Amino acid sequence: MSATAVCIGTRREVPDGAVACPDCGGAVGFAFDLDDVHFDDGDTSMWRYRRLLPLPDGADPVSLGEGRTPLTRASRRDAFGGADVRWKNETLNPSGSHKDRALSVAVSVATGRGASTVFVASAGSTGLAAAAYAARAGLRCVVVVGADAPEGRLLPLRIAGAHVVRVGSSVDDALDRLGELARTHGLVDLSTRRSGNPWQAEGPKTIAYEIVESLETAPDVVVIPIGGGGTIAGIARGFEELREMGRIERVPRLVGTQPAGYETLVTAITDGLTTEDELRAAAFTDRPPTVQVKTAHTFAPDGAEALAAIRATDGTVLAVTDAEALAGCLDLAQQDGIWAEPSSGVVVPAIARLVADGTIAPNDLVVGLVCGNGFRELPALESGVADELPPIETLPADPTDRLLALAAS
Amino acid sequence: MSATAVCIGTRREVPDGAVACPDCGGAVGFAFDLDDVHFDDGDTSMWRYRRLLPLPDGADPVSLGEGRTPLTRASRRDAFGGADVRWKNETLNPSGSHKDRALSVAVSVATGRGASTVFVASAGSTGLAAAAYAARAGLRCVVVVGADAPEGRLLPLRIAGAHVVRVGSSVDDALDRLGELARTHGLVDLSTRRSGNPWQAEGPKTIAYEIVESLETAPDVVVIPIGGGGTIAGIARGFEELREMGRIERVPRLVGTQPAGYETLVTAITDGLTTEDELRAAAFTDRPPTVQVKTAHTFAPDGAEALAAIRATDGTVLAVTDAEALAGCLDLAQQDGIWAEPSSGVVVPAIARLVADGTIAPNDLVVGLVCGNGFRELPALESGVADELPPIETLPADPTDRLLALAAS
Repeated sequence: MSATAVCIGTRREVPDGAVACPDCGGAVGFAFDLDDVHFDDGDTSMWRYRRLLPLPDGADPVSLGEGRTPLTRASRRDAFGGADVRWKNETLNPSGSHKDRALSVAVSVATGRGASTVFVASAGSTGLAAAAYAARAGLRCVVVVGADAPEGRLLPLRIAGAHVVRVGSSVDDALDRLGELARTHGLVDLSTRRSGNPWQAEGPKTIAYEIVESLETAPDVVVIPIGGGGTIAGIARGFEELREMGRIERVPRLVGTQPAGYETLVTAITDGLTTEDELRAAAFTDRPPTVQVKTAHTFAPDGAEALAAIRATDGTVLAVTDAEALAGCLDLAQQDGIWAEPSSGVVVPAIARLVADGTIAPNDLVVGLVCGNGFRELPALESGVADELPPIETLPADPTDRLLALAAS
Repeated sequence: MSATAVCIGTRREVPDGAVACPDCGGAVGFAFDLDDVHFDDGDTSMWRYRRLLPLPDGADPVSLGEGRTPLTRASRRDAFGGADVRWKNETLNPSGSHKDRALSVAVSVATGRGASTVFVASAGSTGLAAAAYAARAGLRCVVVVGADAPEGRLLPLRIAGAHVVRVGSSVDDALDRLGELARTHGLVDLSTRRSGNPWQAEGPKTIAYEIVESLETAPDVVVIPIGGGGTIAGIARGFEELREMGRIERVPRLVGTQPAGYETLVTAITDGLTTEDELRAAAFTDRPPTVQVKTAHTFAPDGAEALAAIRATDGTVLAVTDAEALAGCLDLAQQDGIWAEPSSGVVVPAIARLVADGTIAPNDLVVGLVCGNGFRELPALESGVADELPPIETLPADPTDRLLALAAS
């Protein structure tokens, strides 16, 4: 393949298929030959960029048509202080979120390496994506969920044929357990953090490639909801590769968001934390209730990598309240026709805050990543916004007059 | 614009903006100059085909990135007698269905003609699409729903800012009323049938264009769920235009499906009905319960046009039971990673039946149109399939042994 697997710490090559460095136990990444890169114009999925994705030689992508999502312009420029805001609408990926990019890579690699059973710890977007791609590839998919995962969110996983197992602990503990078994027993873990699966970490790069292809330049600021940290870190590497290839001049300022009450990386920036050990030591155990269920981690497993990318681009991390996130969902739907889940509605208040504090200037080109489809979280939206919606009007037996009055008003 | 509005009956030109022929009251369509057609390779939405869409001069498309949906290969060729089956995955349109194509055209035209309030009769895919595009365009959207529309399906409409009004009658009656007011009072009706809005009828053509571009040929058979009939009729015209332009040799055989209990067009074919009046006379009033809520019309307003297209291509219409539709949803999810709503799960049993009766031969190239996203109809899916799903397994406090056993089995 065009990528070489390396230990991220030592930059030494590691054996094909390793999820950790056999020498130091460190995380694995990939080095790509960035000379003379051409993309496949005939491919209408994100596999157009396969030259920069770590697919084993001879393996075929397991694709459901992920990527190549719309980048639409926000309708109200004045709401953002004159900035030119675009929404990268990742809700239109096959299972409804940006995670399809990571999982398409991970399942392609697992299939190419002969796996028959794959595992993932997630009752959220990653679980759905894993179930969909495993189904398409004919793999058995075991989805590990936490004690508190609502039954309603497990139904789509079971419809797709996943074997759902519930552990007594939190999903964060399950993540750790799967990652450990991946390193010690060769279990195939599709969960989206580098320490259990380095291949998936390359998927989010394609978001950066697509943004630059659409805009024909790099934006000034990109706002990205953070869960585990891998998405923002991957997008940063995508921009960095484009810069190294001479296709853009600089990497945009990257701004992450976290749910209020889960602002581990906000605190990390304030306190100057940088390493995974420092972040793990700062993790907390109580889980305040939040509607931002897709991004509420008490410890961001790829947080150190995310923080490095954010600091390198002079970015920051903002904590967003549930009320702000839900208002953002209403704004995205009512102004721009996008049904986002609460965890993604955060991009609206985050951009507004960056405008207010001067981080975003008038005429700046700004991209907000709308990660997940709101139809997958309608109960959360309903409980959060039902009181603010106009009532349903009941018309008389002959509605003609009322309809004409509405047409004229 | 590149299109001329004409009376479908007389082929005489009608005034710009007319929804019916001022002379005979007949339906309006469009004649396109098919010489020297080029598409816009730089546009990543269906507006790539704007040369063959009826946009007023000077108007800009109202786009949310609709179209350019994946065409993925069904994983199990043996399940379809050796036919090469592809799924045109319309669930990945902005509001979750193929209706976004029709509504993007309709709202673009309404905006271009200066509308400020638009109407639609639908608690289904058309309503959602209308709400999304109206929101993006800054139009007030009045969504008329029937007495029996469940509140849960109205929530996303209200989130997108639509003004929802409930009439005492069925949605089919509301459709008739809106269409009448469109013709008599100039009310802007976005509902997807030609008699109230001829512009939207051109949107589905782009599905045919995309299929042929992806396959680089015409398929042998296309299977399409029928609601009002406009989608299959529009797709037929799309193929016919490509044939007239010399890009394909023949129009594929078009096969429609209807929910069992609502098989008005199946009966029409058996009984030799052809005209709208004949179909209206054969409409029934009782509405048997069905999970196929998106396609259960007692009268297909564009049925005559649909029937003509189906007969011209030597196609047919099949009635599909709820049990078959739900099994089709499970099959799409578990084999091919697509969450479809019950109204779209029908493509699987329909194709299987066409294989069994010899209509589809081994090695035929077949496309099934998966219209609507299952996440928008999770309650219907849940009630229909919950009993058939494997139970959720609960793991012991230390799940290691069980996880390793699953990995090894």
